[in-house]
Amino acid sequence: MIETDILIIGAGPAGLFTVFEAGLLRMHCHIIDALPQMGGQLSELYPKKPIFDIPGFPSVLAGELVDNLYEQVKQFEPGFTFNEAAARLHKLDENLFEVITDKGTVHRAKAVIIAGGLGSFEPKKPPIESISKYEENGVSYFVKRPEDYAGKNVVIAGGGDSALDWTVHLAEIAESVTLIHRRNEFRGALDSVEKVKRLKQQGKINLITPAEVIDLQGEDHLTAIVIEKEGMMHTVETDHFIPLFGLVPKLGPLADWGLELEKNAIKVDNSRDFQTNISGVYAVGDINTYPFKMKLILCGFHEAAIACQSIYQRLNPNKKFVLKYTTVSGIEGFDGTKKEAEKQVVSTLD
Amino acid sequence: MIETDILIIGAGPAGLFTVFEAGLLRMHCHIIDALPQMGGQLSELYPKKPIFDIPGFPSVLAGELVDNLYEQVKQFEPGFTFNEAAARLHKLDENLFEVITDKGTVHRAKAVIIAGGLGSFEPKKPPIESISKYEENGVSYFVKRPEDYAGKNVVIAGGGDSALDWTVHLAEIAESVTLIHRRNEFRGALDSVEKVKRLKQQGKINLITPAEVIDLQGEDHLTAIVIEKEGMMHTVETDHFIPLFGLVPKLGPLADWGLELEKNAIKVDNSRDFQTNISGVYAVGDINTYPFKMKLILCGFHEAAIACQSIYQRLNPNKKFVLKYTTVSGIEGFDGTKKEAEKQVVSTLD
Ligand SMILES: Cc1cc2nc3c(=O)[nH]c(=O)nc-3n(C[C@H](O)[C@H](O)[C@H](O)COP(=O)(O)OP(=O)(O)OC[C@H]3O[C@@H](n4cnc5c(N)ncnc54)[C@H](O)[C@@H]3O)c2cc1C
Ligand SMILES: Cc1cc2nc3c(=O)[nH]c(=O)nc-3n(C[C@H](O)[C@H](O)[C@H](O)COP(=O)(O)OP(=O)(O)OC[C@H]3O[C@@H](n4cnc5c(N)ncnc54)[C@H](O)[C@@H]3O)c2cc1C
Repeated sequence: MIETDILIIGAGPAGLFTVFEAGLLRMHCHIIDALPQMGGQLSELYPKKPIFDIPGFPSVLAGELVDNLYEQVKQFEPGFTFNEAAARLHKLDENLFEVITDKGTVHRAKAVIIAGGLGSFEPKKPPIESISKYEENGVSYFVKRPEDYAGKNVVIAGGGDSALDWTVHLAEIAESVTLIHRRNEFRGALDSVEKVKRLKQQGKINLITPAEVIDLQGEDHLTAIVIEKEGMMHTVETDHFIPLFGLVPKLGPLADWGLELEKNAIKVDNSRDFQTNISGVYAVGDINTYPFKMKLILCGFHEAAIACQSIYQRLNPNKKFVLKYTTVSGIEGFDGTKKEAEKQVVSTLD
Repeated sequence: MIETDILIIGAGPAGLFTVFEAGLLRMHCHIIDALPQMGGQLSELYPKKPIFDIPGFPSVLAGELVDNLYEQVKQFEPGFTFNEAAARLHKLDENLFEVITDKGTVHRAKAVIIAGGLGSFEPKKPPIESISKYEENGVSYFVKRPEDYAGKNVVIAGGGDSALDWTVHLAEIAESVTLIHRRNEFRGALDSVEKVKRLKQQGKINLITPAEVIDLQGEDHLTAIVIEKEGMMHTVETDHFIPLFGLVPKLGPLADWGLELEKNAIKVDNSRDFQTNISGVYAVGDINTYPFKMKLILCGFHEAAIACQSIYQRLNPNKKFVLKYTTVSGIEGFDGTKKEAEKQVVSTLD
């Protein structure tokens, strides 16, 4: 069982910055995320794109912002449970919550902050009836460990950046890579499109367009796929099929936790502290809603700061909350590091 | 008369970032500040100190953050009225406001955002009865144009960074510089203390401690000051006297604008849009108050974004407010510049 002060659901920018604000108040955090990495939408959907409206950054790549945020919070030693979705929430006591993931990992904390963004990302699956049978047996919607594909025959389907980028990457590793797309045109970064073109010209990958995978074959494990191309069926032998059709965010299990919802988001009390209708459970970032809400990165930062202040007061009803300036008080990490402004000297001038 | 869409009072971080959020919504801004430069507390009180809690910056010097913010907003061409304090506010119409400064400059705008921080900074004055007579005639509380002191005899009083730094700076320019402090010890950055020590040892400045200036002399213009040092009076001839005893923020004239105040700050409706009790007048940043308010830089950014959204809706009641991601839509400056993420290419792969 994992125990902490504040359990955060979602490692996007809002969840990450929460670790920092909690740390300033000496509260430890643990983050659960369904994805294999931190950064939420920024890492998953647009890591190489510039964002222009983060205060103080005329321009910053989404991936860079995530790196900066982790650099900023890591001294407060957040724990992470990646690749698992928060599935159930139990309020055991006024200041004791239990969150269990889809893989059964149990987390306990004094308060919960849901920073789940648009929900957990789930892959869009192709409409092939037998597909669920092959999941984990040849069909994957993510590439988690590229080295698993060494010496294998791989079919990738899709027409966007992920399909292009993984085609390039796996071409180096796999025995063979076939890229299938239902249109002739691909849409992606210039660079990725160029690389795939070159691989195609060099005969290092196979390209089948316009075509769709319509069936899967194999006893226990995938052995072949059936393709429809211009009205004709073809069977292509393969060990792996990786459909990369994008992700759709789903509120998912959160929707059944008894939280008041509105417009597919969690209603919070913005006149106070971004608490949900379950006291001790807060929601910050894209996942919450209130009048004038803007689903922007900068909003989650402020909401996180206020939610942490409120949790501090819940857990320390007899202490007065005193706002400290980091410039003046410095920062003491849980890892023993200390950052502070150069101290002024007091000196006579003789 | 200066006319704009949104008139902002205060060029601190909250006021500056407001220009950006307004600009995204195609609204122009003009900023009034009582100080000679932008940046508010950051520029005036701690420009060389690192801040550790700006999201995405593990550490950033206050002065650097101000530079970054200006770099980010300048494409939206804000106007500035520096060195003037907003003194009077008149609501001429539901969407027409007039703000007049202490120097009589008239500004008109469709909405007003007060981002006045702790109020306008006023110098702490030494308790010398005749001092107001010499203001502008030999006594100044700021050094606005150092070159004005060329060839003059200058007395600086104070024991902190400003007194030390201006002593160093004016030692190069003035005929003579005398530094007076009521204690023997000075408190400042190591570097400044060392520099003043060296000037002292080289005989390039005079140092009188512990001593206090207790009287001023001169017909129309200052000609001498009277000092008390260890119970004795001394007269020192000088052309200028610059007491640098720090600044105190004063809500000042804002307090008489009919705004609902609480704890020396302006009450706003945080459940909606940070509007004050005067509709069309908003308050963001340190100057506002509401439950769980934190006087931090990051809070003003979010408040500014929401206030701009609200103003947009006030001024465009028939348009739907559509949130745009800068990453997706890019940014078009009023100065003709355009920033945008690299476009994706659509291409066949043959
Ligand atoms: C293409 C694009 C461009 C954008 N451009 C901008 C821009 O220029 N400026 C801007 O401010 N914003 C922009 N945004 C929006 C910005 O990305 C979001 O506001 C931001 O990501 C929200 O952060 P968050 O931390 O609230 O949530 P997210 O980034 O969505 O992260 C939420 C995380 O929670 C996880 N999660 C959800 N539910 C569960 C669960 N039950 N269990 C475990 N994990 C869960 C998800 O896997 C995800 O990692 C853009 C978005 C997109 C898609
Ligand atoms: C030593 C110190 C360290 C700090 N450290 C941190 C930190 O680490 N992190 C953090 O988040 N915050 C910190 N702060 C607080 C931070 O500086 C403030 O939250 C921030 O400056 C508020 O920004 P603002 O734009 O609301 O107001 P301000 O920065 O106060 O700017 C307000 C401006 O409005 C002007 N003004 C006011 N009234 C009028 C008027 N009537 N007419 C014309 N102009 C007017 C003022 O001259 C001023 O320039 C610190 C503050 C201090 C003093």
